Amino acid sequence: MQQKFSNRMVSMPKSFVREILKISQDSEVISFTGELPHSLLFQVDEIKKATEQVLLVNGKEEIQYCQEKGYYPLRKFIASRYFHRFGIDISPEDILITNCSQQGLDLLGKIFLDKGDNVIIEKPGNLSVIQAFSAYEPKVNTVNLLDDGIDNLELERLLKEINPKFIYTVPNFQNPTGVSHQLEKRVATAELVSKYNTILIEDDTYGELRFIGQDLPLMKQFAFQNTILLGSFSKIVASGFGLGWVVANKEIMEKLVIAKNGVDSYDNFFPQKVLYRFLMKGNFDLEMTKIKEGYQKQRDAMVLALEKYFPKTVEFTRPEGGMFIWVTLPEGISAEKVFEEAARLKVVFVPGGTFYRKALEVNKLRLTYTNFDDATIEEGIKRLGNAIRRVIDASIARRYVFEEFIEDRDLSINSINK
Amino acid sequence: MQQKFSNRMVSMPKSFVREILKISQDSEVISFTGELPHSLLFQVDEIKKATEQVLLVNGKEEIQYCQEKGYYPLRKFIASRYFHRFGIDISPEDILITNCSQQGLDLLGKIFLDKGDNVIIEKPGNLSVIQAFSAYEPKVNTVNLLDDGIDNLELERLLKEINPKFIYTVPNFQNPTGVSHQLEKRVATAELVSKYNTILIEDDTYGELRFIGQDLPLMKQFAFQNTILLGSFSKIVASGFGLGWVVANKEIMEKLVIAKNGVDSYDNFFPQKVLYRFLMKGNFDLEMTKIKEGYQKQRDAMVLALEKYFPKTVEFTRPEGGMFIWVTLPEGISAEKVFEEAARLKVVFVPGGTFYRKALEVNKLRLTYTNFDDATIEEGIKRLGNAIRRVIDASIARRYVFEEFIEDRDLSINSINK
Repeated sequence: MQQKFSNRMVSMPKSFVREILKISQDSEVISFTGELPHSLLFQVDEIKKATEQVLLVNGKEEIQYCQEKGYYPLRKFIASRYFHRFGIDISPEDILITNCSQQGLDLLGKIFLDKGDNVIIEKPGNLSVIQAFSAYEPKVNTVNLLDDGIDNLELERLLKEINPKFIYTVPNFQNPTGVSHQLEKRVATAELVSKYNTILIEDDTYGELRFIGQDLPLMKQFAFQNTILLGSFSKIVASGFGLGWVVANKEIMEKLVIAKNGVDSYDNFFPQKVLYRFLMKGNFDLEMTKIKEGYQKQRDAMVLALEKYFPKTVEFTRPEGGMFIWVTLPEGISAEKVFEEAARLKVVFVPGGTFYRKALEVNKLRLTYTNFDDATIEEGIKRLGNAIRRVIDASIARRYVFEEFIEDRDLSINSINK
Repeated sequence: MQQKFSNRMVSMPKSFVREILKISQDSEVISFTGELPHSLLFQVDEIKKATEQVLLVNGKEEIQYCQEKGYYPLRKFIASRYFHRFGIDISPEDILITNCSQQGLDLLGKIFLDKGDNVIIEKPGNLSVIQAFSAYEPKVNTVNLLDDGIDNLELERLLKEINPKFIYTVPNFQNPTGVSHQLEKRVATAELVSKYNTILIEDDTYGELRFIGQDLPLMKQFAFQNTILLGSFSKIVASGFGLGWVVANKEIMEKLVIAKNGVDSYDNFFPQKVLYRFLMKGNFDLEMTKIKEGYQKQRDAMVLALEKYFPKTVEFTRPEGGMFIWVTLPEGISAEKVFEEAARLKVVFVPGGTFYRKALEVNKLRLTYTNFDDATIEEGIKRLGNAIRRVIDASIARRYVFEEFIEDRDLSINSINK
């Protein structure tokens, strides 16, 4: 049977994360691979109550389809939250509810990208972003993400050269590095966006999750018209609702709505109403404070374990929010090799190579600290520390053998020359 | 600001149906435009119970993400339903849960279509299908849908000429015509699909909704390997869950999963579990019988009202299932004109032009009978009958004026010639 798939299927990467998730289904495996909050943080009783209320109060109509941009009160909640946090004025009409922020990425790819168009993403960056955009066959360019934000010199060089359709960035607690852009960096990047009149896609999925220090302004505040903002409830309330949103100006929103009609004419309205009720039931700020305390406790447990069980030659970040710690192994130690060893010891993580445009064997890896309680985190990191030690030791042994081999070779060459 | 959208946005049609939905929000308007079941048919209490059980039994984990193809028990339910109804053996591994069948269409477009590829759809056909595919810029060809199925002579001519990536068809109670393909037609179309080794996308969204006569076999049964099957729970249980599915062979499924990762890495697992519990609570066959009785009652009420209130020169179908009646006005009477008049009388429907590739003013229109109780259906059809009469009368009057004008003109020309 003829089965010629589209060309884009060649360039769409398969998700390595999903491959790992399969391994993780062994219940003895401790998996630091996820991108989801700890279920302990979810207020199941409150969600249950909200569900009952939605079903009770409005009854049968509640299970019907919704229209256009999503449930209006929920969009109003999001708008007022932006006003509350940043004092910026965003209309509910500029907000489109999506199925996770991933759908937002797909829709943006759809409305902006023709084959061969240039886009800029951060290096390293989240694979699922590349997956979403690559369906539209753009030329993906990368700009280095430094410890404090985008390398703006490199960005300006790129902007002069390639006139991209857009730049995609995650300024708060980026996946996978956990890096947050510092204020001056945000301003500088936003100024470049305005100067070269391109579009900035600011993905603020993790923005609500700062547990140390002060929230920084959105990049949108420095390039308001040129910035499209993405958000998600998945990391902060209950991931299974699968609700995210896009903030965009009227012209872009019109195209987004047309594109969304093409992918799911009828939205999943019911969870939007349940979520809205849940959000309105109490003090959301207070709620977020509790959730962030939970995240910080897990982060602290992992940092402590890393200090205790990892070789001193291994470096790692100490994030001020979000879900990820980014680990740098000694030069020449492959995270893929460590992964193989760690899987044998029943602990897994995401090797850093996954987060580079061209999958490389790098000495970086990502740990998610939000999946487990303190004891499990400690046990997992202990196992992982052992795995790393084994690989380092084997590497030293290998180098020793290699040097011996070289010496032997030299000898034999010498003997031939003689 | 630069805002160059992708080329595909030029070819993506805006949904006229959605424009109508906006008008319909006036509570005095009776709208026969929807594509959704009557909310009276939904078993809200049972869904509420199922929700409680899911939250209670499994607690916090239930709100977490799911993986890959969707909740396994729900996929198993779908597989066993196919076995129960048609005796065919489909593995849960060949089933992917989607957000409505619309997402299935988008994913199929994504994995199969490059710009300029040929596809074949029915004429008339559902606009949202064109919306989904047109994002991938194919060349859309149409084959006439007759009263008893596809015009297979025309189909074979097309297949010889254009070598399409796939043919899309809705063999049961098609939207908008309500037509079901007769058995011989199904066999003949499937044979052409096999003979020319192309792919058939069989969208069976309305297949469970036959209330008169016997279920016919799936087209997949006559071209098993070449057929991709689409289904949906939206028309039969509760539309707000927004759950559909794709049945495809292993090779295609692998690509679908990759494509789905690109649009929503993490699925909406919670409603899948609630739906599964709801489906398992009782006898689904019995349930469907009740739902279909409800549909038939509404269909009968509309047919009765059409016979009573429509001019005898207006023809309409008497569907054996599904949700739609297809109306043919007298030759030369535009459904758009009737729409304007009807909107004034506070009743709306979807003009037939919407369902043709090139939006035309045609003398066809679609009525959905599943939105209201008998009394409202009667009142709406009465208003619509009046609107049609007014347009017919005006048309006769116009023709009269036009003929007079022609006579006058003849006279004046005659006088000039004199």
